[in-house]
Amino acid sequence: MKTNLNILVTNDDGFQSKGIDVLIRVMRQFGSVTAIAPKFPQSGMSMAVSLGGKPVAVETLPSEETVYYASLDGTPASCVKFAIDEVCQSKPDVVVSGINHGYNVASAANYSGTLGAAEEAALNDVPGIGVSLGDMDPDADFSAVEKFFPDIFIKLLERWPKRKGVYYNVNFPNLKAEAIKGIRVGHQGMGHWEGQFEPWTGDDLHPKGGECIYVIKGHFVDDTPAEDDFADHHIIRDGYISITAHNVNNTDFEEIKRIGCLNADFLPS
Amino acid sequence: MKTNLNILVTNDDGFQSKGIDVLIRVMRQFGSVTAIAPKFPQSGMSMAVSLGGKPVAVETLPSEETVYYASLDGTPASCVKFAIDEVCQSKPDVVVSGINHGYNVASAANYSGTLGAAEEAALNDVPGIGVSLGDMDPDADFSAVEKFFPDIFIKLLERWPKRKGVYYNVNFPNLKAEAIKGIRVGHQGMGHWEGQFEPWTGDDLHPKGGECIYVIKGHFVDDTPAEDDFADHHIIRDGYISITAHNVNNTDFEEIKRIGCLNADFLPS
Repeated sequence: MKTNLNILVTNDDGFQSKGIDVLIRVMRQFGSVTAIAPKFPQSGMSMAVSLGGKPVAVETLPSEETVYYASLDGTPASCVKFAIDEVCQSKPDVVVSGINHGYNVASAANYSGTLGAAEEAALNDVPGIGVSLGDMDPDADFSAVEKFFPDIFIKLLERWPKRKGVYYNVNFPNLKAEAIKGIRVGHQGMGHWEGQFEPWTGDDLHPKGGECIYVIKGHFVDDTPAEDDFADHHIIRDGYISITAHNVNNTDFEEIKRIGCLNADFLPS
Repeated sequence: MKTNLNILVTNDDGFQSKGIDVLIRVMRQFGSVTAIAPKFPQSGMSMAVSLGGKPVAVETLPSEETVYYASLDGTPASCVKFAIDEVCQSKPDVVVSGINHGYNVASAANYSGTLGAAEEAALNDVPGIGVSLGDMDPDADFSAVEKFFPDIFIKLLERWPKRKGVYYNVNFPNLKAEAIKGIRVGHQGMGHWEGQFEPWTGDDLHPKGGECIYVIKGHFVDDTPAEDDFADHHIIRDGYISITAHNVNNTDFEEIKRIGCLNADFLPS
């Protein structure tokens, strides 16, 4: 295992979060760390990029732990783009995103800015890993991640596939290190949210005529059979660290084979 | 084919775009249309949702073509959530997102707000279809979509899979109807962008000390072999309408099988 890697660290909770500080410290043992993190929290931003001519401000930050640290007023995927295009002399050897304050399992993975950054890495043919802990407390205890993630990181990187587009999603249960039962490699679980729109109760916004104002919250409905022990959110439920692989190419190949009957070399004139 | 469907229409270009007006007109022949569209353009927003306690304003709009029309100051996926949670009496029969001004093929599909809406539909077990035309002109000529999309819509909906999580991505080449060669069902192509960060040249923003300001643009680099005629962006290149299927569950099953050796029922104490 090389220990002089060029490592890019980012996250979606923003540069001021504890999770990214811990991750930078964990990753330094493997090489040089460049960090580009969102200026403001970007949870739920998926793989969004800052387009449409919207300006993106980048500000260099003082840091003794990294070779370069900047905040970027945009999304996690934009942070990875900026690092690859503008900062790193060559592509980084790996992008690690997190440590997220809160799980990115089941359908939450679709919305995850943490994983959006790992996906952007994979799109650029750079290994990308998202790492999350099931504790949304700003002062979350990341000691189990500090203890076990280095070994997982080494094992993933040593085995990184030649096949393109893969990125990894690692989630830690909200448990003390000694209470974690082991590691399970599984698949993304499925679920959806209901009751998401709650009326805004703040008095600092004044709806114009015809306007209603809400905040999005809601509760998760598990669409995965309870006995599926290898769905990522059930792996966590059972006290294990969850490792899932995703791919930038999310073509449903089984479905396009099934629907191939629609191929037509002509259309009605 | 039922023609009394409850249809939800949304997009990512915003309620003021021509594409959504055309789509509402096209879909009315199949039933009742509810439309919830972003208040502001949301291109590149992927499956982002408006979280973090950020208020979301919804404003009812006058409309003779729909049973209900509102703008929502948030992302396309949030528009679908709002429709399902708050507007539709029951889940809509189908969500159609577009017509997007511009292609959503190859890796652009990962960033696409148009497809983020279709993906949100699929997450809620509702058929979701994104439809795009390769013309970014605000006054784009959608006549080929008007001519051919109804038949594609019927065929997809009649054959909709029982398997969960599928959503469709339909792209029209920027050609007159009579110049389109046919339909090809294919897979998502791959590519990435380079040279994306251009210095901001406007004089309306004043960078603070240590800040640099950019806009994200860049050029697409095709990572798909030129001879792959069934990559969606090559289908378009060759003058065909492209149909691709995606899935909300983008687990890389081949990869998790390969990496299963990491399973461990214990961790170092």
